[in-house]
Amino acid sequence: MSDEDFPAIPSVPKRLLLGPGPSEVNPEVLRSLALPPLGHLDPMLLEIMGKIQDLLRRSFGTRNHLTLALSGTGTSGMEAALANSVEPGDRVLIGIIGYFGERLCEIAKRVGGVVERIEGEWGKPLDPEHLRKAIEKHEPRVVCLVHAETSTGVVQDLTGIANAAHKVGALLLVDAVTSLGGQTLRVDDWGIDICYSGSQKCLGAPSGLAPITFSERAVERIKQRTKPVDSFYLDMLLLDKYWSERQYHHTISAPLIYALYTSLSLLHSEGLEASWERHRLNHRAFRKGIEAMGLHLLPDEAFSLWPLNAVLVPGGLDEAKIRSSLLNEHGIEVGGGLGPLKGKMLRVGLMGYGSRREFVLELLAALEIVLWGMGHRSDAGAGVQAAMQIYAHPSMAGVA
Amino acid sequence: MSDEDFPAIPSVPKRLLLGPGPSEVNPEVLRSLALPPLGHLDPMLLEIMGKIQDLLRRSFGTRNHLTLALSGTGTSGMEAALANSVEPGDRVLIGIIGYFGERLCEIAKRVGGVVERIEGEWGKPLDPEHLRKAIEKHEPRVVCLVHAETSTGVVQDLTGIANAAHKVGALLLVDAVTSLGGQTLRVDDWGIDICYSGSQKCLGAPSGLAPITFSERAVERIKQRTKPVDSFYLDMLLLDKYWSERQYHHTISAPLIYALYTSLSLLHSEGLEASWERHRLNHRAFRKGIEAMGLHLLPDEAFSLWPLNAVLVPGGLDEAKIRSSLLNEHGIEVGGGLGPLKGKMLRVGLMGYGSRREFVLELLAALEIVLWGMGHRSDAGAGVQAAMQIYAHPSMAGVA
Repeated sequence: MSDEDFPAIPSVPKRLLLGPGPSEVNPEVLRSLALPPLGHLDPMLLEIMGKIQDLLRRSFGTRNHLTLALSGTGTSGMEAALANSVEPGDRVLIGIIGYFGERLCEIAKRVGGVVERIEGEWGKPLDPEHLRKAIEKHEPRVVCLVHAETSTGVVQDLTGIANAAHKVGALLLVDAVTSLGGQTLRVDDWGIDICYSGSQKCLGAPSGLAPITFSERAVERIKQRTKPVDSFYLDMLLLDKYWSERQYHHTISAPLIYALYTSLSLLHSEGLEASWERHRLNHRAFRKGIEAMGLHLLPDEAFSLWPLNAVLVPGGLDEAKIRSSLLNEHGIEVGGGLGPLKGKMLRVGLMGYGSRREFVLELLAALEIVLWGMGHRSDAGAGVQAAMQIYAHPSMAGVA
Repeated sequence: MSDEDFPAIPSVPKRLLLGPGPSEVNPEVLRSLALPPLGHLDPMLLEIMGKIQDLLRRSFGTRNHLTLALSGTGTSGMEAALANSVEPGDRVLIGIIGYFGERLCEIAKRVGGVVERIEGEWGKPLDPEHLRKAIEKHEPRVVCLVHAETSTGVVQDLTGIANAAHKVGALLLVDAVTSLGGQTLRVDDWGIDICYSGSQKCLGAPSGLAPITFSERAVERIKQRTKPVDSFYLDMLLLDKYWSERQYHHTISAPLIYALYTSLSLLHSEGLEASWERHRLNHRAFRKGIEAMGLHLLPDEAFSLWPLNAVLVPGGLDEAKIRSSLLNEHGIEVGGGLGPLKGKMLRVGLMGYGSRREFVLELLAALEIVLWGMGHRSDAGAGVQAAMQIYAHPSMAGVA
């Protein structure tokens, strides 16, 4: 292979990232990435890390001391949540309504948990009453639920779950990878003990860091372990000492810290609830546009995620071809289905900086053109026009 | 706290990073970081990842198929190396001549290994003959050595170790966090089975990715496990499927991938052996300068690392004050001692882009001024002059 195959700066096209994440990055966040890197123990970097902790607490809606960002992706957040809270032999009750519930089971087993599954239909949330009964019956040590199931676009109602869990001495562990910053989430009010997310979804930073928070109850559980956490890299008590007491643990990535800080700062300039409303508005406009084109989202509106829209592909159309046309002819990335939904779904993320009117309209226009080319014909402009009705009259769609 | 406390772009000073890592980042690598992010399954990103695999194989000196970069720091590399190769109850022989040998023990125990320690003096390497005998005696499943002990600036001779290990059926696992790209390392020629590093040392990228390689023998060991790897996030067989077969595992960080790619491309434009020689030359010049100022490195030249220089602080001087003066008055970061060497040592990294004549001279000048201020007086300019003798006549110092 010749050296011309390895130019120093790779040639990278600008895509519009409207898949399940990474999402579009705010230009300010990109500027942050290229700031001069600081050492992992530099007082100025530790100050920025302290601000990230403050801003993450606001974003999660928590006063938890142990709130920080792991040096890994959202999957490392899932692993840290389970590896710290579950000891070998512990019963773990896991709600499964999609791919990420399955992943929770996989990881819980690897760290030695005895998994009890509560399965629901993919595309619907679990019934909280059903969940509460299962908690009473199984008396697990940890209850795991996916708040925002990225594989199906469904939001899980968590009402009353924490009470039921705490009554039997269980911790409530919640995956908020796709909801943090983009959909109503109140860690303390809802009694969540462990909650994690990713930097590359509704926060609009690049991937590589995983925000996570542990309640006092969850910290106590770690302290009472009889066996240390298998993972040194994801040991929450050691990470707490690094973030809070500046005790060396690993070499954190300064550019990722800058980017996460900037994305959180922008989120709180906008206002957390304003960001939720923006995600809701763009979701409603997108749904209306999709329906006007004769397509449908998998979940009912009542339990639809706002940041992630699961669009069913009309029968007979080649899903992979739709995505490759959007990518190669229109420069737009959307995701495909996972697991049993492979080939049947487009997953459209309207997250963080990507949740914007111009992107919704751009995607609806491109999708219409691609579908026309494949023989699925709707009235020209029906999608963008329907979406505009929402933007013109948001209150008619129930959006403030 | 008011919003003025959270400006969108943090105010970050430019430091000269001459600590134990992160090292100085090449301006081209910084440019790469801010390229438009691509999705983790975008064909163009996967193409860049493929080039990284090629360039990493060249850097490690290996033909191993399973060669990639983990989405974590060097410590995640150490954890992945052990978590995949060690099963509960396996005997693991670990050489300890510094802080990172101790960390290997800590992690090996967490993943269930039964650790046999071979300890040596901090500041010296272990005797290969002694190591070979210990391998024969203990017949471990895995032999772990730190090639470049970042806490003491010592390089470990690995001659004959692989033969002894393979004879008893053990794998040879080597920490090359501080040597990859900056000091002679030949994974295949030396018979190393598992080798890992970090992106932020001699490769000159920001931290956040950990290059790692597994031999066929090591891959077989994973395949024969009776129990899956505790860690899903660091499961090498799943990561192989992501890197080689594009099967979704986690959301890799595009900016970190761009940066690592660019740093590897620049390394191979220079030439791997030329980079080793550059690190050697700058180390020799720095040592000569330090000695001319009446200071000393901990290790003898015969087993000194080139990228990391462990400078003993003269008796009576306050090490923390030297470092804070260098940082706050001269804008230069160097590291302090770890473990028993805390307070007794400055750790000076001359790594990657940071291994340059102008930085060596700048640091020697600043150090002289700081030490003068603290009462340690040498002839004015003695350090930079002695270093210049090496740059003017590299062959006299044994550098080609």
